[in-house]
This record gives sequence, structure tokens and C-alpha cells, in this order.
Amino acid sequence: MYIKRIETTPFELEMHGALRWGKFGELKSIEHMLVKVEDQEGNIGISEAPVRPTIYGETRESITAIVQLFSTKLIGLSSDDEEIYNVLDSIPNNHCAKGAIDMAIYDLRAKQRQQNIVDAYAGEKNQIRVSYILGISNIETMLQEAKRVFANGVSVFKIKIGRDSQHDEQIIQALKTEFSDEVILYVDANETLDAKEAPARLEKLANLGVAYIEEPLPVHLIKEREYLRSLEILPIIGDDSCFTLNDLQRELQCNTFDILNIKTARSGFYYSFKMLEEAKKHHKGVMLGSQASCGLGTIFCAIMASQEGVTHPCELSFPLKLKTHMLQKPINYNNGFLDIHSLRDYKLLCEL
Amino acid sequence: MYIKRIETTPFELEMHGALRWGKFGELKSIEHMLVKVEDQEGNIGISEAPVRPTIYGETRESITAIVQLFSTKLIGLSSDDEEIYNVLDSIPNNHCAKGAIDMAIYDLRAKQRQQNIVDAYAGEKNQIRVSYILGISNIETMLQEAKRVFANGVSVFKIKIGRDSQHDEQIIQALKTEFSDEVILYVDANETLDAKEAPARLEKLANLGVAYIEEPLPVHLIKEREYLRSLEILPIIGDDSCFTLNDLQRELQCNTFDILNIKTARSGFYYSFKMLEEAKKHHKGVMLGSQASCGLGTIFCAIMASQEGVTHPCELSFPLKLKTHMLQKPINYNNGFLDIHSLRDYKLLCEL
Repeated sequence: MYIKRIETTPFELEMHGALRWGKFGELKSIEHMLVKVEDQEGNIGISEAPVRPTIYGETRESITAIVQLFSTKLIGLSSDDEEIYNVLDSIPNNHCAKGAIDMAIYDLRAKQRQQNIVDAYAGEKNQIRVSYILGISNIETMLQEAKRVFANGVSVFKIKIGRDSQHDEQIIQALKTEFSDEVILYVDANETLDAKEAPARLEKLANLGVAYIEEPLPVHLIKEREYLRSLEILPIIGDDSCFTLNDLQRELQCNTFDILNIKTARSGFYYSFKMLEEAKKHHKGVMLGSQASCGLGTIFCAIMASQEGVTHPCELSFPLKLKTHMLQKPINYNNGFLDIHSLRDYKLLCEL
Repeated sequence: MYIKRIETTPFELEMHGALRWGKFGELKSIEHMLVKVEDQEGNIGISEAPVRPTIYGETRESITAIVQLFSTKLIGLSSDDEEIYNVLDSIPNNHCAKGAIDMAIYDLRAKQRQQNIVDAYAGEKNQIRVSYILGISNIETMLQEAKRVFANGVSVFKIKIGRDSQHDEQIIQALKTEFSDEVILYVDANETLDAKEAPARLEKLANLGVAYIEEPLPVHLIKEREYLRSLEILPIIGDDSCFTLNDLQRELQCNTFDILNIKTARSGFYYSFKMLEEAKKHHKGVMLGSQASCGLGTIFCAIMASQEGVTHPCELSFPLKLKTHMLQKPINYNNGFLDIHSLRDYKLLCEL
């Protein structure tokens, strides 16, 4: 069936508090986009595009414009046509816009077969262990947030570090004291560590009980990253260094990471599946990252997280940071696991 | 003096014919943007932003939107404030939008001192040898175009290759037959060669008299590119692999190129100066690339090309491809050289 219309719709959701990361990153409220792809029969696939100027250089305006530009080339193609990916590949960057078009088309294909996306694409794993991202704040606030989320059943925490090493160590110790071995802790340095000091910092984090670390060093320091990984102090997650399949291939050549962070928000389904295959072929671990996706984005992310080859807890709990929601029924985290089948009959709130 | 207003204005120019490159690249007409930065005294700095969706993922809409977003953070800053670069660095990609803001601010600073940009920033070199880009077309068309440009005094040609190796060799031979050793020929493969076949292809091109080659292999194949350069068959120009200062640092770590292609259109003046310094420190050659800049962009590019450390002919002749112009007085190429001082009193056509 042919693609007839592609549309973007902005939407807003409120958060419980701000999420802070890296040197300057901050997210205070959610201003995302819905991307809808309609075929000539009236079937509609819908996905969520996060808007992250400081990570991908995309704004609502750029997403609107690039989706409009792509739509001139996609309308008239069959929704199964591989040419779709040539069109999307013809323009670089614009990651979340392209990821959202891709996922909306996957959703459309499921709808054409009267299937929900979970039944259409879920993998072998029914129960996915979820992790929760603790943004940078004062110790008390971070601990309170962790307790609230732990009470909701989540027992894996990613702690954003890199603004103040003393503070980083204090919060890790506080969390270990509070939850002892009931929780898995890992950290995300968002490229903020110094290359010379990194080995010692990683030793210290390992001794504090941190399980693995995401992007310790600036991505362009490829030789230093290769060296740091070779020391095998802590497993390293590749995220900022692995936006695309091409990035991933470069990083695999240089062997800079141990666990690949796939984000469906930026690589869609088509390339996320390819990146997962590539990681498996190279015997790398795989996790799914959140990109602060709300309900709908989290469902797509969970479907990818249920695939064979995903080895680590996945960041599927961002909706717990939200005060207002996009799904009629909130996502349920049961003892720290997300039941993929509980997402089968999701419905968007009609006001979106 | 404080930045008071930042504006974008689209403009169109006609070309003599289409420019084709790489596997799919094609440019049929010019739809660029002017970026104007005004201070509280009414001084206005102006620069040109090319719009290249297939290279940088930017559209007119994305450039308009991101310049608007930056302007909310730049307005009120002194035009000399280093904070300007923190603001521009806070959002990745959007290369030509950021490059144009940067250059408009340099122009503004010159205007504040009642100087023209040439006197304010030109380097030691008065006469810059220019090269001309021959897009992919049939042999006869390419040869006719080369003759027309040669008659205008230009004797260095960059030939876009990579769609058909037989055709590539034919046009190089035809140009050599036509002009013998009066011309320097180099080629731009735009990442289209096969890694295994590349050494033999480079041997062949060297034997045909090609002086150097730009981006033979896909950028993400970093190990293959490192190896190909180490063979020293032909000097390699780094372009797609060196968009930013960070990219350049990665490439220098891996020693993948011999000559750096700096494009002021994408790195502005601030980062172009830094990239030039970095290249000099590593004893690399440097050339300036065109990005199909029209008159105003070519002036900024020529100023960078006049700096000490620029070692190779520079792509300053794109205006010869234009049927309509943005400058009142056309740029004059004298025996294949551009006299930087001839650009001192340039004026934009008032209809822009």
C-alpha cells in the first residue's frame, strides 16, 4: 500500500523535575513531536520524535521542515519499499526526525496487517529489566528520587556524573548504603572525563561498585578511548560515539566499547536492527537507551529491547519522570521488569 | 558593542549548468541564505550560508530556525565576547548556519573599526592560485567547460570522480591531452571507492598524472583510510572526514590524510583558524574548499586562503559557474590567481 501523507504534530508533557547531564545538558519539560504516516487506505502509523538541540542539533522547526522534505520523496512509495531507506539516507543528521519516520512506517505496516506493533515486532524476551536515569542534582534530591523509583520496582540506576567528582562518589556511596546489593548502579560520564585521569577514575568507580560506564571520554579522542577500553577496568558503553550504523562500524574497527547503547529514537527500527546484528557479530553487549522518550517512544524502545542479543538492562522508565502522560494507561513496571505484552493494547490520549 | 539583531534572508542565483558529484549529489541552482548580524550602533556584518541538505542535513528552514534560536542567546553579548563560541558549540551539526553567524560577526567587527574584511583579516599571501571544480558530465561537456575556465586563466582542476571509473580515466586523459602540463589535475572521489580496489585505483590515477585525491574511501572506514594513506601512492585530501575541529583531531590521531580541506562555509573563521593551526602543527598541507559559495562566501574563503600555512591551490572559482551574481563587480581571476586586494571594495547587489 502506498504512502499518502506524512504529518508532524508537536506536543508537550510536564516532568516531575529537571534532568541534568554532562557539562551543560538540562531538560525541564517535554516538547516532542508525533510523526504520522498514512497510507491510501487510511491506515496510520504513529511514532514519537524527541527534540534534542544540544545532542542532535534538531529543533521542532528543523524536524517539521525535514519531515516535509522527506514526505515529498516518500509519498507514492509502497510502505514496504526499500527505497524508503535510500531517501532517508540521502540527508545526514536529523536523527530523531528520520528515526520517527522509520518507526511510524513500521507501525503503519503492522496496522495494515491488523496487528499491534508489539505482536508484529517483539522479540523472544517477555520480561525486560529496566533501568532509571538519575539526573545530576543534590544528594538528597537524587536519593529521594531513587527511593520513589525503587518503590515502583526499579532496581537498576544510571547516574549522570561528570560535573563534580566528589559529588559523583558521594551519591554512588549513598545509593549503595541505601540499597546495598539490591541495585545495579552504572554511570554516564557524557564525555566529561580527562583522558589522563580516566584510568584512575574508573578504578575508583569500580571499587565503589559501579557496574559499567558510558562514554567516559570525548568522542573525538578515538585513540585514548581505544586505550582506555583495552585496560578493561570497567565495561564501557558506546553511546555518543555510535549514533549511526556507520559510526558503529568505525567504533568496532577501533574496539572502543563493550556494550552498545542503541536508541530507537535516533536510529529507528531499520538501523537499530542492523546495529544489533553488528554488535552480536562482534560479541558486544547491547542495551537500549531512552533519549527521554515518553510513552509511545518507550513502547518502540521496549520492542527493540525484547530482541535476542540485548544483554543489559534497558532505559525504559523515563515515563516515571513525567507528571502528565501521552498513553491512556500508564506503563507498569513490575518488580523492575517491563512485561512487553502489557504494552500490546496501548492507546494514545485523544488530546494529543 | 552589543549584538542587537540577527537576521536571515534567502536568495537565489542561476548557474550555467548542474554540478554533479559522488554517487547522487547534484546542484542545479543556488538557493543560499544571507546572515546579517547588527550591533546597537547600526553596524551590520553580512555573510553567506550555503544550503546543503545532502552534505550537512541543513535546509533553509532549519537554518532560519537555528539562527533564530542562537539569536536569543547571542543578542546582548558583546560582538567580541568569547561566549559567542560557547553558544554556537552548545548545538551540534547545523554547520553552515553556525559558520555564517561566525563570519558575519567577524565582518561586523571589521565594520565597527571602519575596516573592510580583507584589510581586517587577510594573511600574508596576496596572490592565491585558484582551482575549479569540474562536475560529473559527459566528456565533451566537461572538456568544453574546462576550456572556457582555462581561457579565464584558471589552470588547476578538481575532477569529481566515482560514478564510472572508465569515464573518470577518459576525462583525465582528455584534459591532459588538451592542456598537457599547463594544468594541475586532482580528483575528488567523495567516498565512492572500494577499500580493496583503492590502492590499484590510486596507482592508475597517479600514472595518469593526477596530483592528489580527495576522500577516496567512506569516512567510517577509518582503519582502511589510515592504511591507504600509509601506502603514500597519492597525497590524500581530508574533507568529509574533517567537518569540525574535533573531527580533525580524530583524523590527526589516525593520520588518515595529507592535505586538509578547510571550508569556511562550514567552520566559519573562528574554527577555520584553529583548524589551520592544528594542520600546521602536524605538518599537513592545507587547501580551502568551496562548498559552492557564491561571491560573498568566496571572499571569506579567499581571506582564509591567504593565510600562512595554506599550501595548495584553493577552490575560489565557483562564481565562474554562475549566470547571475551577488556582487556588483565580478571576481577577477588573473592568470589563474586571485588578487586578495582586488576584493577589498566589494559591494553586494542591492536587490539581495
